[in-house]
Amino acid sequence: MSLETPKLSEILTEIDNALPAATERLFDLLRIPSISTDPAYAGDVATAADWLVTELTALGFDASVRPTPGHPMVVAHSKGEGPHILFYGHYDVQPVDPLPLWNRPPFDPALEETDKGTVIRGRGTADDKGQLMTFVEACRAFKTVTGALPGNITIFLEGEEESGSPSLVPFMKEHADELRADMALICDTGMFNADTPAITTQLRGLLGEEITIKAADRDLHSGHFGGAAQNPIRVLTKILASLHDETGRITVPGFYDGVPEISNALRAQWEDLGFDDKAFLGDVGLSIPAGEQGRSVLEQIWARPTCEFNGILGGYTGDGFKTVLPAEASAKVSFRLVGTQDPHAIRESFRALVRSMVPADCEVEFHGHGASPASVMSTENPMFEQARAALTDEWPRPAAFIGAGGSIPIAGYFKTYLGMDAMLIGFGLEDDQIHSPNEKYDLRAFHKGSRSWARILGKIYGVE
Amino acid sequence: MSLETPKLSEILTEIDNALPAATERLFDLLRIPSISTDPAYAGDVATAADWLVTELTALGFDASVRPTPGHPMVVAHSKGEGPHILFYGHYDVQPVDPLPLWNRPPFDPALEETDKGTVIRGRGTADDKGQLMTFVEACRAFKTVTGALPGNITIFLEGEEESGSPSLVPFMKEHADELRADMALICDTGMFNADTPAITTQLRGLLGEEITIKAADRDLHSGHFGGAAQNPIRVLTKILASLHDETGRITVPGFYDGVPEISNALRAQWEDLGFDDKAFLGDVGLSIPAGEQGRSVLEQIWARPTCEFNGILGGYTGDGFKTVLPAEASAKVSFRLVGTQDPHAIRESFRALVRSMVPADCEVEFHGHGASPASVMSTENPMFEQARAALTDEWPRPAAFIGAGGSIPIAGYFKTYLGMDAMLIGFGLEDDQIHSPNEKYDLRAFHKGSRSWARILGKIYGVE
Repeated sequence: MSLETPKLSEILTEIDNALPAATERLFDLLRIPSISTDPAYAGDVATAADWLVTELTALGFDASVRPTPGHPMVVAHSKGEGPHILFYGHYDVQPVDPLPLWNRPPFDPALEETDKGTVIRGRGTADDKGQLMTFVEACRAFKTVTGALPGNITIFLEGEEESGSPSLVPFMKEHADELRADMALICDTGMFNADTPAITTQLRGLLGEEITIKAADRDLHSGHFGGAAQNPIRVLTKILASLHDETGRITVPGFYDGVPEISNALRAQWEDLGFDDKAFLGDVGLSIPAGEQGRSVLEQIWARPTCEFNGILGGYTGDGFKTVLPAEASAKVSFRLVGTQDPHAIRESFRALVRSMVPADCEVEFHGHGASPASVMSTENPMFEQARAALTDEWPRPAAFIGAGGSIPIAGYFKTYLGMDAMLIGFGLEDDQIHSPNEKYDLRAFHKGSRSWARILGKIYGVE
Repeated sequence: MSLETPKLSEILTEIDNALPAATERLFDLLRIPSISTDPAYAGDVATAADWLVTELTALGFDASVRPTPGHPMVVAHSKGEGPHILFYGHYDVQPVDPLPLWNRPPFDPALEETDKGTVIRGRGTADDKGQLMTFVEACRAFKTVTGALPGNITIFLEGEEESGSPSLVPFMKEHADELRADMALICDTGMFNADTPAITTQLRGLLGEEITIKAADRDLHSGHFGGAAQNPIRVLTKILASLHDETGRITVPGFYDGVPEISNALRAQWEDLGFDDKAFLGDVGLSIPAGEQGRSVLEQIWARPTCEFNGILGGYTGDGFKTVLPAEASAKVSFRLVGTQDPHAIRESFRALVRSMVPADCEVEFHGHGASPASVMSTENPMFEQARAALTDEWPRPAAFIGAGGSIPIAGYFKTYLGMDAMLIGFGLEDDQIHSPNEKYDLRAFHKGSRSWARILGKIYGVE
């Protein structure tokens, strides 16, 4: 082995050889019960941060624990050559309740053989300690083989992701110059499927609205008043029923401003994924795509905006029957947003539309719940295609740029506060049971995930 | 005073003179805590029945306590001349919770002076012990003045009205020959207002339906599935919103079969009542009649059918926001029925209409909750006009045949099981606080109510 001419293949071999040791290191981190939502575990969260700083320092990073009003951040820099990348992960974990449903202690990790191969069992394996360590182990292999970390890298690890990240944006704003990079790498997502890696390049935004229709100043008896008094459930259902037309399009004026069609290239990648509509819906007892007509299911969930009713409540809802005309009725309505749809403009347009449908004798109250635009990455940056090629080299199936139906706030924050695009690359699978008992991470995901990052770093920093 | 030529005026004077004694008798009955819903008071319910039998026997009735699987009935006969009338009332009362809100012990009745005159305060004063005793005191005055009860009278008193009358229909069926009369008199309703007596001649029926729309076999994440999966709240609101057209008419096919227009005579009586739409709606914070266009408020609530939504529930309804697509959503829907609308036919038509709107990937479940047709009395029987004239003689304002928006099951039972029409005549007022703390019955209502029955009995049995 020559340090003068490092070869990617040597680095990958080092990862293969070091897998048992890497697994033991991950176990050390997994044994720390760094539950961020429960104040009783605050000391453990700090211990996990310290453990990471020690590891990263040993690898040659300039690493430190950075206090916040909540749990600390870990920031580590390696001032190498080439593009500056910022790697993000989180070292806190979800609570473990209900404990009796675990088949082993959640903070006593172990390898288990299953029908689908060897898994690492324990809280935080997939979300997100196992994932963040794939990147650390890739860096370690570079260091071992080449004697140096691969390039100009910042590692940024959070300890509050599972408790709403209250300190994240303030910290990001305060340390914007330190954290700003050419690209963010976020390892907290999944593969498209077990053989198909993915880079998430577009995430839908989310606008939440709660509307309450009020009529009489008290609940009324439907015998005494029925036929003469406004019924707020009736008003509410008329409003909600008007929000979609017969083809499933949303009727809020201006709603489709900024909704792009996906490119032919992306459409081709998505078609190549061989997504199984029937299995996707069949898994939850459905069979017929319910969204906009003329759109594939992947388009419906990744690239099209929606208006959904997440909750509705009014009147008597207990057992039996009560002939009440309720004083009020309410609904929680959310919009998934794509492209450059403006959540604030849509909120105003939605409220104006609702107000126009409220009868003179009723009132409406609005309660806004969050308004984040879609995150759509500018994939012209060559790192996107480099990463896609690297992942395609590692896995059985080609990698694709995919969408995500849900929001991942961190990607939006990087864009908003640091002006960075992000590549969301992760190796989790649908069956990892994150947030649930018996969380696991495939040993294959940990191993090939590390190799994937080594390949991506190789492409970015010119190690072939 | 001559027994040979009894005069109504003497009987009325006797009622006036006997008012203090009558009030004391009512107090005796009110002191018995005959709460029918609470098994702890079963002995008190029985005591109240015994007290009534003793009273009625002393008056010359052939009275007895009649056991049922629940609380007993009291049945009393006086085999006199003339039409056979059946008087119905109930001697059980509502529970008294919350006790701290009472300004005196609920079963320690007393007269109280108020802004609006003297009231009898206590549980059961208006509902229904005070009301039923108006009839007993009228009979007593006849007996005192004429030496005999006024005619062919059966008194039928129930002890389960406040707990759903489980024994009523079986008892009625079993004793149909004994109870069947030419007319039922029911004293469990109110005046039109404090000066205007009323005979309720039409009561709306009620059909209750609960519908549940089911889509996926579990709650889904709206980020992952939104746009592709059916949302049962959306399906439900579409269905509910379609049940009324733009003019407020109900769209269930065949719904208006059997809906009559009210007669010109009745329309004139209702117009004479001087009903104050603005006050009626203003009392509950509303101002604009919300029902079918072109109908008066009284028509809307007494003579027109409705479709109301009494409850709706689906998805997340707690604080904050949860981006769930719920597995199911449900609503309680009720129809107030008039004329000869057939609740069973409407139920089938409603269900067929709903089924036609449920998408292929969803299911609907129905749960029926009661189906009673409207009760519309045949006012051709001369007793109706006799009673109206008698009431008009007693009170400041002329009596009217009115409707009632709600159902009073007993009226329907008499029609269905005994083939009798019923005159619902009562002296309660809106502010009597029945079913609530500090229930009261105006002393004036008790006094003039007794006089009213004496006048009605006089008309029926030819005592002028």
